This record gives sequence, structure tokens and C-alpha cells, in this order.
Amino acid sequence: MTMTPTVKAILDNYESDNPGVKANLARILMQGKLGGTGKLIILPVDQGFEHGPARSFSVNAPAYDPHYHFQMAIDAGLSAFAAPLGMIEAGAATFAGQIPTILKVNSSNSWSTGANQALTGGVDDALRLGCSAIGFTIYPGSDDCFELMEEIKELSAEAKSVGIATVIWSYPRGGDLPKSGELALDVGAYAAHMAALLGAHIIKVKLPSDHIEQKDAKKAYEGFDGSTQAKRVAHVRQACFNGRRIVVFSGGAAKGADAVYQDARDIRDGGGNGSIIGRNTFQRERGEALAMLEKLVRIYKNEE
Amino acid sequence: MTMTPTVKAILDNYESDNPGVKANLARILMQGKLGGTGKLIILPVDQGFEHGPARSFSVNAPAYDPHYHFQMAIDAGLSAFAAPLGMIEAGAATFAGQIPTILKVNSSNSWSTGANQALTGGVDDALRLGCSAIGFTIYPGSDDCFELMEEIKELSAEAKSVGIATVIWSYPRGGDLPKSGELALDVGAYAAHMAALLGAHIIKVKLPSDHIEQKDAKKAYEGFDGSTQAKRVAHVRQACFNGRRIVVFSGGAAKGADAVYQDARDIRDGGGNGSIIGRNTFQRERGEALAMLEKLVRIYKNEE
Amino acid sequence: MTMTPTVKAILDNYESDNPGVKANLARILMQGKLGGTGKLIILPVDQGFEHGPARSFSVNAPAYDPHYHFQMAIDAGLSAFAAPLGMIEAGAATFAGQIPTILKVNSSNSWSTGANQALTGGVDDALRLGCSAIGFTIYPGSDDCFELMEEIKELSAEAKSVGIATVIWSYPRGGDLPKSGELALDVGAYAAHMAALLGAHIIKVKLPSDHIEQKDAKKAYEGFDGSTQAKRVAHVRQACFNGRRIVVFSGGAAKGADAVYQDARDIRDGGGNGSIIGRNTFQRERGEALAMLEKLVRIYKNEE
Amino acid sequence: MTMTPTVKAILDNYESDNPGVKANLARILMQGKLGGTGKLIILPVDQGFEHGPARSFSVNAPAYDPHYHFQMAIDAGLSAFAAPLGMIEAGAATFAGQIPTILKVNSSNSWSTGANQALTGGVDDALRLGCSAIGFTIYPGSDDCFELMEEIKELSAEAKSVGIATVIWSYPRGGDLPKSGELALDVGAYAAHMAALLGAHIIKVKLPSDHIEQKDAKKAYEGFDGSTQAKRVAHVRQACFNGRRIVVFSGGAAKGADAVYQDARDIRDGGGNGSIIGRNTFQRERGEALAMLEKLVRIYKNEE
Amino acid sequence: MTMTPTVKAILDNYESDNPGVKANLARILMQGKLGGTGKLIILPVDQGFEHGPARSFSVNAPAYDPHYHFQMAIDAGLSAFAAPLGMIEAGAATFAGQIPTILKVNSSNSWSTGANQALTGGVDDALRLGCSAIGFTIYPGSDDCFELMEEIKELSAEAKSVGIATVIWSYPRGGDLPKSGELALDVGAYAAHMAALLGAHIIKVKLPSDHIEQKDAKKAYEGFDGSTQAKRVAHVRQACFNGRRIVVFSGGAAKGADAVYQDARDIRDGGGNGSIIGRNTFQRERGEALAMLEKLVRIYKNEE
Repeated sequence: MTMTPTVKAILDNYESDNPGVKANLARILMQGKLGGTGKLIILPVDQGFEHGPARSFSVNAPAYDPHYHFQMAIDAGLSAFAAPLGMIEAGAATFAGQIPTILKVNSSNSWSTGANQALTGGVDDALRLGCSAIGFTIYPGSDDCFELMEEIKELSAEAKSVGIATVIWSYPRGGDLPKSGELALDVGAYAAHMAALLGAHIIKVKLPSDHIEQKDAKKAYEGFDGSTQAKRVAHVRQACFNGRRIVVFSGGAAKGADAVYQDARDIRDGGGNGSIIGRNTFQRERGEALAMLEKLVRIYKNEE
Repeated sequence: MTMTPTVKAILDNYESDNPGVKANLARILMQGKLGGTGKLIILPVDQGFEHGPARSFSVNAPAYDPHYHFQMAIDAGLSAFAAPLGMIEAGAATFAGQIPTILKVNSSNSWSTGANQALTGGVDDALRLGCSAIGFTIYPGSDDCFELMEEIKELSAEAKSVGIATVIWSYPRGGDLPKSGELALDVGAYAAHMAALLGAHIIKVKLPSDHIEQKDAKKAYEGFDGSTQAKRVAHVRQACFNGRRIVVFSGGAAKGADAVYQDARDIRDGGGNGSIIGRNTFQRERGEALAMLEKLVRIYKNEE
Repeated sequence: MTMTPTVKAILDNYESDNPGVKANLARILMQGKLGGTGKLIILPVDQGFEHGPARSFSVNAPAYDPHYHFQMAIDAGLSAFAAPLGMIEAGAATFAGQIPTILKVNSSNSWSTGANQALTGGVDDALRLGCSAIGFTIYPGSDDCFELMEEIKELSAEAKSVGIATVIWSYPRGGDLPKSGELALDVGAYAAHMAALLGAHIIKVKLPSDHIEQKDAKKAYEGFDGSTQAKRVAHVRQACFNGRRIVVFSGGAAKGADAVYQDARDIRDGGGNGSIIGRNTFQRERGEALAMLEKLVRIYKNEE
Repeated sequence: MTMTPTVKAILDNYESDNPGVKANLARILMQGKLGGTGKLIILPVDQGFEHGPARSFSVNAPAYDPHYHFQMAIDAGLSAFAAPLGMIEAGAATFAGQIPTILKVNSSNSWSTGANQALTGGVDDALRLGCSAIGFTIYPGSDDCFELMEEIKELSAEAKSVGIATVIWSYPRGGDLPKSGELALDVGAYAAHMAALLGAHIIKVKLPSDHIEQKDAKKAYEGFDGSTQAKRVAHVRQACFNGRRIVVFSGGAAKGADAVYQDARDIRDGGGNGSIIGRNTFQRERGEALAMLEKLVRIYKNEE
Repeated sequence: MTMTPTVKAILDNYESDNPGVKANLARILMQGKLGGTGKLIILPVDQGFEHGPARSFSVNAPAYDPHYHFQMAIDAGLSAFAAPLGMIEAGAATFAGQIPTILKVNSSNSWSTGANQALTGGVDDALRLGCSAIGFTIYPGSDDCFELMEEIKELSAEAKSVGIATVIWSYPRGGDLPKSGELALDVGAYAAHMAALLGAHIIKVKLPSDHIEQKDAKKAYEGFDGSTQAKRVAHVRQACFNGRRIVVFSGGAAKGADAVYQDARDIRDGGGNGSIIGRNTFQRERGEALAMLEKLVRIYKNEE
């Protein structure tokens, strides 16, 4: 497939990166059914780490098999597949060269009490497994986050030097931030901006609500129209260096297909780059999931 | 532009530094409209990290784009542009060689509760991005600051060995120091002095009030006339090894242009080296900001 | 000085380099009287190593002092000053930030019998001395060159990672290559091309004659019009990735000013980027040298 | 100056140290007006870090300039000058070779609440700045001190391997030790002994009172005559391996000249090696300070 | 001893060096009877390595003992003592701090056939032994010298970073250079210049004859008056960056005292910095040697 002007323009925004990083970003952006459009859908399967296998896969038992997810991402024509070390190791050879992979290098679990994660993979792993990027979660919201930030500083510098891209999951949590504020618009935009400042190539945040959480930020949002999800997406995109960094949105917990489609339309209309969609994919029966992903692709291609 | 005797005299004060550090200091001091005068204006854009993107940029939306700030620093003829990793990465190639950059290597955010910061960049980053200096914040005022001091000790030694200069933001905060005392004259002079003792080449502090906070220091200020801001600036300059180290002052929150101009006149009259002026720049419409910076330049050149 | 479109276009050719390298190339290309034109004149003073001090400097005794050359490069508005370690050390602090320097990191001497050089400086030296580039000589023409190529491979990789540019002096010599063939057009173009392939940012070769030395190459030059020096320069430029790499030409031994001027006109007309001119500078009395360099500047600016 | 038997005998006590350490100790012991006597006066200027610049220097404004202190130590014929990193950097080249320097590598400040200090310099800094020794403060008296002891263990081992001497400031503080006990004789002797056991070459403690603080120690001091300061000094000297380690005493806060002289006489008569005298020096007008130091020299030379 | 303007001016020439290197150069320049004059006499005792012990010491048997030489350098008031590792180790503790030492880190011997030397010491040795400088011999004159140059490049960079100075013995030898040419004026000046370009702080060469060896250099010496040894010394000094680097001359084989005195007068009158005088010292009976050195001191002080 020939490079498109749209993707070329996106790559040009990564002006400080070496061609290795650019090639890996290009691989993701030129992959699958959305290849060349500047839009992307990533399949993340780290739910097993976060919530345990049964909560993740019992509803669709074939999903216990890592190959299931590789194959799903390929068959659905997605842009990349993201997972923790063991799951990538379980399929990286079989599917080598068929789908860009993102090695999720830190992970939490349901039993951990603080807003932190364990390092569970490294840049060396990403290289030996042929991954295009590392993925890393930060929890902005408390001083505990400083440790996470310092870890991604080290990992990202190492990754950049060897041509691996960096994806940051930025999830506000902890400290003085109430649970109710985690999805606030101001909080989400701030979280996205921090990921950008930390040097992420691709930023992953949650779709924000229209709530403004921080007292000090209320004034900045006076007169701001956040009434539609598309407008809120557009604001988060602003916070990602006015669109100079790729931003994708997670859909959250499994929900009805129509809600998933509406989210995608809003992301598209607000200028976001796409979806990172896990549970809503693998917690559906395979045929159903493929159909849903096909429809999402058509939405991102402005065909629906 | 030929080296001026004024700048040469300043460089001579850095007598233990290698020519690499001196060249980077010279680049800053010979840059832009104040080049050669020994005065400098630095544009810092780390507000997005500290206060979030909306509070920083919503009032002047083009400022969401990192290139906006690089271009502003260049067009206004400023001395240097300071920002965290991601923002420098987003423009360092486009503007390579056009404006000295300072990589802010630690960062706080609105949600952190202690007086601390996360390391978010390193000397290797500064080299690959062509930066002239690293910037680092310390919070003198509590034992937490020891960790920050030990971090800058390591970073600064590494930077000096490879010809990169060090800028220390010294902001008293935390511990037993009440909020009301953070801007006190004795506290500001002390903070500046600690930065000098830590080996900073350029020291950044806030403009102090005439309040004396520390009980033990009151006697030392008996008979001291701190009635004008210029006199207080002169005292802070004393605390910076009697002028052997460059000291610049921040203007604080956005405020009226006249107040900004008066600050600059006081800095100049007190023998300070200049301003580091962020929000007062990018939270104004571009034309207005350029006009304000032009006037500041004229003030520092003794033309107003 | 604002970046010019011409220089911007040149920098864009170095698309795999980090912003640090670009900034150092920009410093050279924006320096002095030719700043912004895409043309450059470099003053190299390694003759003392190559031919001894008396043969180099006795005709103009002030040139025994390293400061003489720094000052000459500055006063004449040249683009950069290149010299071995000791000479850079002798002036790097006094002239810090006033002229980009190129640390010549290998050196030969009149008494060495093979086509080789000794490593006499390193990338760490370049950093501590504030140099913009390292300079390195290769002698394509015999297997001895493999060792030199392997050295520059290591040095250049290290330099690129820390933002230092690489200049390669490519002088065919040794092996089966007869003295008579060293200046041949095919040989010079080949030497330039090897430097480009080795990853040089700036390539320095000698002005070639119209002789074709290699029997195997004769066919390739059938029908090629190398009758004028400008056409031969254009061919060497072709060999430097069709102009994607900066190429400068040395003037060889001291000669009459008119010959120097004609060389410059030919380099300009053939699309070369400029001159590296040592003996023809410092073996003239200072006033005479300044006048000559001023005229060369005017030639490169198309004013003569 | 020829080595004296007195100094030779002192050096012989450092029987496990390499010649590099011995040479640096010899430099201090052979320097200035007391050179060769086995007595020494050290000028420490870390008060700015500990108490802030105004409390330290406002009473004698020229003392804001680091060069003032270097020059004072030289002109008064003192044995060494001790200061934190930035202050040494500010004068180390100008005064290179004129006065042995001691790099104070940890520092506290008035705002820190615990009995700890921040590392603010290292052995590499000491080497590049030409220092003869590193200086380090421990606060025996609480578990916090274990961290300090472990730091000096590392630093001192590194310093000894490269020929740099170690000076330990041993100040009992923190834990269960009441403020009232910090100057107790048993406490001071204990602090000195711990410094000796930690491997210090030069030990700095405060002049002790005749109070015995530790209940458990009272029995050991039964029958001990600590009625005169000289006798107490002699006891501290005992605690420093019976004189096998150099011990110097600090004079504490600025006080009347006669009290300073009496302290010196007592140190001398008790067999102490000298004074480390900061505030009592630089908080006097220069002429007055020089006269006082001259008199102290005469006291240590048994001339008064 | 107070720093003199003469020594200060010499130190200022080492503008790229850190205060550590400057302090060690200052120690040499302020030592002994010539301290402060800018002149120096160094006692080198590496003859045992080069020629064997009997050829070196049998004429004056006490010289078999390393302490003899340390004591001689001290008693004669010389500037420094240079020797290989074992000899420095044999006296470094006894004479610590009494005389600056130069650790000769490479050595040849009578049985080696090529123009090369073995590395026999390192910078770590210099530090643990308290040496002020390392000494290193190069043999310019053949490709074998490239290896030596690369060794001193590494050693000198390491030494400079830890504050140790570098002395280069530059002895033309080997390759196509006939024995008869080794002392030629053009050859000696060239050898001195190469040492300067390699970054030496102190250059040691032999006193040159008025012979011009290199055919290519003859023209450069046309009209040059090398008829007196003082004029030839002045020319070598020119080759050492026009006096920006210290140059000392060896006296060669043992010879009559009057010839030694005349050499010193010529070195002085030609602007050389002094003598490095081994065999002519220790191959004389001690009293005689002391008298000769005393007279040399008087010559360098312009008293004879």
C-alpha cells in the first residue's frame, strides 16, 4: 500500500523521532482496513491482568487463547494488537509480520490497592518479539504518579533510541481526585496533555463526560460548549498538542453495540484518531465482534 | 553578532566550566533582541503540566500548538524557550538552530499533593534535542527537597561534563513554611542562594515582597531598606554570589501589562538579568503578546 | 538571524538526524557573512600537524598563535573553524559561542609512510569543548582505509546520538592508486560518494581534474562533458546524493588569489556548497587574507 | 617549605592511606602561616546554605562574593577553605593552587525539619575542582544518622581510592538527644570517636561543655576533671584515637574576639589541632578579621 | 607563596582546563626555588628503564635508591620529579606533599627494537600516588607513532577529567627519519607542535641543532636565522602555540657543567620555560649536582 498524504502529515508531526520510530508508527497507520486514513482501531487484551481471566473471557471462552485475539485483530483488519508480555509471547511467532503489536510493559491487577502498576516487560522484550510499540499506563492524580512518570521517562527514551514507539494510557486516579472526577472533561484533557508532555507518540484516554471537576479550572471552561461528546473529543485533541499527537479513546466497560458506534462517530467527528476497544470486542462472540468491528471501520471511513 | 564585553564579563564568572557550557550560555546571551546586553527574556511553557491545558491555553487557543511558542520566542527576539520533553520534541527539528532551548527535566502537576516533582527528561534527551540547558525545579522548605537537590546534583554534574548548562527554578514551598512566607524577601534570597550553591548557571526565582518571614532572619534585615522592588531585586542578586550568577525573575500569574512593565523596570534597576515570562506571554493574543515583549525588550535596553 | 528557506531545505535533507545534529548544522549554515545562503566557507588549521609548523606558519608568523585563527574566522565572517584537539583547546573558552568549531579527530603527519591517520580526539572532547561537529579523514584507495572507515563508523554513530555533526575529509590515496590519479574526476566523485555512504553530513573533497583514472570507469564517462571545473563540481555534487549532502572543496596548496577566486566561482556555478580554505588564508598577511575572504564571500553571494 | 618532623609524624598516623591522600593532607598541613606546625585553621563558608545569605553576610556585605572568602583564606595564611559546590566553582580557577579547598558534599538548610542533609557534591566534583578533601556532616543521635553514615562510607571509600582526604563534621543532634545535651562532653567525645571510626582523616566537632548528658556514661566520667576547656579538648583528642587523627573545633556563633582567642588557647593547650572558624571570620570587617586570624595564628604558634 | 602575575598569565593560557588541572600546573609552577618565575626544572629518572640501572646509576651509586632522587629534587628546590610507576611508589608516601610528581606512564627499554613504548602506568595510579601529572613519550617519525598518539589521546582525556595534567615527551624517531635528522631544528619544532596539538600541557623536546632535515621544509626556513641556540629555542617556543604551552628542554647525555649552563642560558634567552635534566643531575656526586642545580636556578632567575 502506498503511503497516503494523510499518514505522511501525521508522521511529519513526529519531527524529533528517528526513522525507526516513524516506520513503526507508519506500520500501525498503514495496517488493516483503516490503513492510510489516519484513523486506527487497536485491540488491547490486558483485561486478564486487570480483572482476572474469568471476568474477562468466560463469556466467550475461545478468548482464553491468545491466538484468538491475534487472529481477531488480523481478520477484522485492525491497526494493532496490544497485550502484556506472556500473551504477546504466546502468538508473536505464529503471527509474525501480520499485525503490529504493542507490548504493554506495566500492568495492575484487581488486588492491588494503590494507584500504581508493576513493570512486566521492557524494550528488549519489545525488540525480540517484533513489537512496534511499548504501552504504559500512568495514573495522574497523586504523587504516586511521579514514580510511574519516571519509569516511562526511562523506558520511552530507551524505546526511542531503538526505533520503538510509545503509547501512554493516561488514567486519572488516586490522590485527592474523587472517583466522580476521573471522567471529567478537564481531568481527561489534562491527563492527555501530560501524556503528550511525557513524549508519548500515541495517547490513550477515556471518553470524557461534560463534568468539570477542578475548582481552579472552572473559569477556563466558562463559555466552553462541551455539550456533545464530539466537542469534548475535539477539546482532548487540542490538549494533545492541537492534534500533533495521535489520540485514541477507550470505550470503557462492555456495552451495547449502538453505544459503541455512537462513541466512534463522536470520536471521528471530534477529530480523534480512533478507538482502543477490548472488552467490547472479545466479550462478544467472534462473528458478532467481527461485524461490530467492520461497522466501526466503516464509521471511521465516513461510510456510515 | 560579535561577542560584547558585557557578555564576555558574565561568561568569565563561570570560571570552572568547560567551553561547551560557556558556548551554550553564550548562545542564550547573544540570542535575539537582547543579545549582547547581558539581559535575557526566557519563554517557559510548562504551565500545561503544572495547571493543565485549559487553564493554560483556553484563553488563547493557538497556544495549544507547541509550534506557536517556538515561533513566538523567535519572532519576539527572546533569549531562550523552556519546556518539558514532549513540547520540545514537537518542535525541535522545525526550529533547530533558531532559538536556544532549555529542557525542563522535572515537572509537577496540580494533582500532586507534596512539594516534589517527577523527573520527566534527562541530559541524553537534551543532547539529542539540541538543547542548550536543562531546567530543574527545587522546592526549598522541607526535607522533601533533599531528594530534589540530590537529583539536580546528579543531573547537573552530567550536564556540565557534556557542555550543557543548568537552570534552577528555586521555589520555596512545603515543610514549616507558610504559604504567606513563600514570597518573603528573606525566603526568596535564601532560595536563590541555595540554587547558586547547588551549582546553577542561571537562577530563577519569584519577585519577592518586602515581608520578612523567618524570625531568625529579622535581625539580619534590620536597617535594610527593602521598600522598593528594585532594592529587593538587588538583594536577591547579592544572594546570587554578588552577581556572579545570572538571576532571572518570574512574573507569576497573568496580570496587567503595566504591572509587567514595572516589574521589568525594577528587575533592570535592581541589577537582575531579566525575566522568565510564560503566562503573561501566551495568555495574551499573539499581537498583543509581541507588543508587550517588544516593550519589555526596550525596557531592558534602557530605552523606556 | 531568521532561518532562510534555502537553509531549511538543506536541513530537511538530513531527515534521519535528530534535532541536535540539525541544530549544529544550522549553526554552521546560519553563521557569518554567508549565513542563510546555503554556502559556507570553513577555515581548517590542521596544516601544522600535516606539514609541520614552519611550513604552515613561517610565512605569516602571527599564525603560530591559535587565537589568530579563531579571530580570523570570526572577523572574516566565516562559517566554521576546524582544527585538532590542542588548537581547539587553546581558544575554545575565549571564543565560546562566537564561531562554530569542528574538532578534527584524526590526524596524519609528514613522517607517516602509510595512508592512515591517528585518532587524536573524540566525541567527548567535542562535547566538552562545545564543538558543532567532528572532522575525520579517510583515504579511500587501499585496504588500509577499512580501518579508517570502521573508526568513523563508530565515532559518527556516537556523535549522531549526542547531536554532533560529522564532516568527512575524503582523500583518495594509497593502494594501487597512482599519485597521478588522486585528483582524477572519477576518483574524486567516487571518494565523495563513499563519504556520503559512510553517513557524513558534510563532505570535503579536492577540486577534481578532467582526468579519468580508472580503466573500468572510462565507459561510464563516455560522452560526459567535464571540460570545465564547474561541470566537474556539478558531477561531484551528483555523487553526493544529487545534492542531498553538503559538499565543500579544498583549494589545495597556497596559490594566487585569482586562482582561488576562480575556484570559488566554479564551485558556486557547479552547485557546490563552498570552500574549505586553510593555507590560502593563513599563509597570507592578515589584511590580505581578510580581503580575499571578503571577495570569496561576495562570489558565493553572487555579487562578483 | 620543607616538611617538618611535626607534620611528618602526623602523616605517619594515616598509615593505611595511599600517597595521594597523604599528599593532600600534607598540602593542608604545610599551607599558610601555620604550615609545618601541625596546627591548622580552616575557613568554612557553608553558612549561606545553613542559615541563608542575609543572616550570614549582611553584616559584612563584601562576603556575598565567593572570591572574598578565597582571598581571605589566602591573605590570612589559613590552612584550607571549605564550601559547598557552587561557591567552590565560583573561585576554583581564579585561585587554583593558592589554597587547599575542601568540597562540602552535603548540606542542610534552616527549613529542613529532620536531622539530615542533602548530598550536593561528589568526589568527581572534588577532582575536577582540584579539591584536597571532601567534607561531610553526620548527625549522630538518631537512626537518621545511619543513612548519613552509609553515604559517607561510600563517598569516603571513593575519595580514598583517588587520593582525596575526608573531613567529617560530627554534630550530635536528633533522636532522643535533647538540645541541652548536644554540647555535653560525653556526647562530643562520642561524636568525635564515631567520626574517627568512620574513617575520617580530619574530625570537626564543637567545643564541649562540662555537662555529662548520658546517664549510662556518668559512671565513666566519675573522677574525670573536666573543669577547664583545655582538659575537655584533651579528652576529645583522646577520643580521636589518642591523637592519631586530626581534630579541629568550631567556634560556634559569632562572638567577642577575646572569647575566640581563649577558645584557641584552650584548643592548643588541650592538644587539639586547630580551629574551623567561619562566622567569626566573615561576619567581621575584613581588616578586623585579618587581625583576629593573625592573632589566632600567633596563639597556635605559642607566640601569645 | 602568593600566586605571581607571571604564573597567573601562564595558567590563563590553559583556558579549556578545569580548576583541577590548573591547580596541578600551579603546584609545579609555584614549587621550589623557581616558584613564581614561570620557569621550571624537572628531574626525570626514567633512565633505568631506558638504559638499565648500571648505565644509569653506577657512576653515583646512591642513585640506585629512589629516595635519593626525591630528596635531590626537594633539596635542590626543583619544580617536579618524574619517574615510572615503581620508582614513584617507592617514595610517594615518604615525600608526600613535598614535591609535585609526574608519573611516567609509558616506557621503552634498550632491548626493544621498534620506536614504541609499553604502557606501564595509568591515571588511577597517578591519583592514588598523588601525582600532579602524567608523562608520556611519543616518537613522531613513523606510522608506529599512531598507536602512541591514540594511547595518549585516551590517557590525556581521562587525566583532564580528574584534574591531572599531561606532559608529553616528543622525540622524533623511526620511520624514514634518519638518526642524523632527529635533532634537526625543523624536526624538533614539528615534534613540539604535534605534542601541543595532542593537547599536552607541558611539552618536552630536545634542544635542536641548526640542521634542517626535511627537504619540503627547507623553503620555510629560508631567511630564518637559526645560528644561535637561543634563536632555535625561540622557534620551538613558536611551534608551541606561540608560547601558549609550556615547553621544557632536555639536556641529552651527561656532559660538562658549562655546557649545561650554556644550554640553560639559551633556553632562558629563547623564551623556553626550563629544563628537564636527568642524567646530568644524578650521574654527578650529590654535592656537585646540588651546586649545578643551584647555578641553573640562578640562571633561570636571571641572576647569572
